[in-house]
Amino acid sequence: MKTLVIVAHPKLAESTTQQLLKQSIATYENVTWHPLTELIDVVQERQLLRQADRIIFQFPLYWYSAPALLKQWQDKVLTTKFATGSSFSLAHKELGLVVSTGSASKTFQPGAAEQFTMAEILRPYEALANKTHMKYLSPLVIYQFPYLTKIEQQRLYATYQQYAANSKFDHFAGQEEWINSQLKRKINTTKKAATQQSLQQIQAVLQSNEDTLADLAMTVEMMKQDEDD
Amino acid sequence: MKTLVIVAHPKLAESTTQQLLKQSIATYENVTWHPLTELIDVVQERQLLRQADRIIFQFPLYWYSAPALLKQWQDKVLTTKFATGSSFSLAHKELGLVVSTGSASKTFQPGAAEQFTMAEILRPYEALANKTHMKYLSPLVIYQFPYLTKIEQQRLYATYQQYAANSKFDHFAGQEEWINSQLKRKINTTKKAATQQSLQQIQAVLQSNEDTLADLAMTVEMMKQDEDD
Repeated sequence: MKTLVIVAHPKLAESTTQQLLKQSIATYENVTWHPLTELIDVVQERQLLRQADRIIFQFPLYWYSAPALLKQWQDKVLTTKFATGSSFSLAHKELGLVVSTGSASKTFQPGAAEQFTMAEILRPYEALANKTHMKYLSPLVIYQFPYLTKIEQQRLYATYQQYAANSKFDHFAGQEEWINSQLKRKINTTKKAATQQSLQQIQAVLQSNEDTLADLAMTVEMMKQDEDD
Repeated sequence: MKTLVIVAHPKLAESTTQQLLKQSIATYENVTWHPLTELIDVVQERQLLRQADRIIFQFPLYWYSAPALLKQWQDKVLTTKFATGSSFSLAHKELGLVVSTGSASKTFQPGAAEQFTMAEILRPYEALANKTHMKYLSPLVIYQFPYLTKIEQQRLYATYQQYAANSKFDHFAGQEEWINSQLKRKINTTKKAATQQSLQQIQAVLQSNEDTLADLAMTVEMMKQDEDD
């Protein structure tokens, strides 16, 4: 799976959020980090889009929408002829959103400060996916990055990796498979024998947990069948 | 009441919709027609905003949002410090939207082509009004302008006049009052005796209708009181 991350941030170099995200996918060959500038080469942009299976709009939320940088790109690159009409060049691709905001998660609901849910605020992007026949992925929203603890940052690091590179990030089995593949990769590339050994231990524990889970799932399945009889 | 109409249209001169709207308020001294360009003088923009009681964002819907031109303006002019924070410079002003779209009204609903209602799609602007303590007006949406009949265009012409200039456009009594004041104005400025006479006839008919309505309203009120007893 090839992913195109379209980053629209007017102060990209100063953003610690974006630095963390960029770093987390730095070694993933199938993920293209593509920061927008005001100069837009429409032909090249469309080529990048055509090559991608998953397209991510990544931006800080300014006035409940992307910065003008992304809107300008949308208005220029996604013409009716290219994105809908007879060609539907983006059809069957996935559209993901990675949105950062300075407001807390709990403020996005009726009766709270922001009044609307994030799902409602991001409707224009969902409508775009609908119109262009893309599959809309659940957005990855980063609330109040500066307040994240070290552990929460690490979790975001790993979640983002999957959002960008795991074709099956939205199922438990898909996440499991992904973690295993990442562990294997790490074991094969690491040079320190001690690190390798501890990674193999983690792998063994995960494998044992997976076996237990598979046994449990089978038992539950049998119980359900008994009920249905 | 002073109104500032912020027009964000990348091809303004070619838009027949915008020409009609502009013409309809051409003689209204308290309505400022303010088309945006890419050059934004932040100080001047804020001065215009401070002077206005009603602020209208007027634009064609591109990808379920305003053209980049307006987003750029929002990002530059409406800083947190100016629009929220300690100053709340827009508080208690009204925010109106005049939005044109090529899709039909009936397509904006669940199960139809656009999937979402226009109210949902315009949430980011409602959220902006909420955040800046402005009063959000019901948007004036112009669906498929090129398909409007001559009579529908005339109705839009008059509706838009009220949306831009009538402080009480959203109540029947306010609309009535407005139409009377517009008739008086026309009678006073017209030079042809024949026109003046027919306008006075219209005025008399309207007055008679108003009297009938007032009588009916009083009867209904009395009936309600009888029920309550």
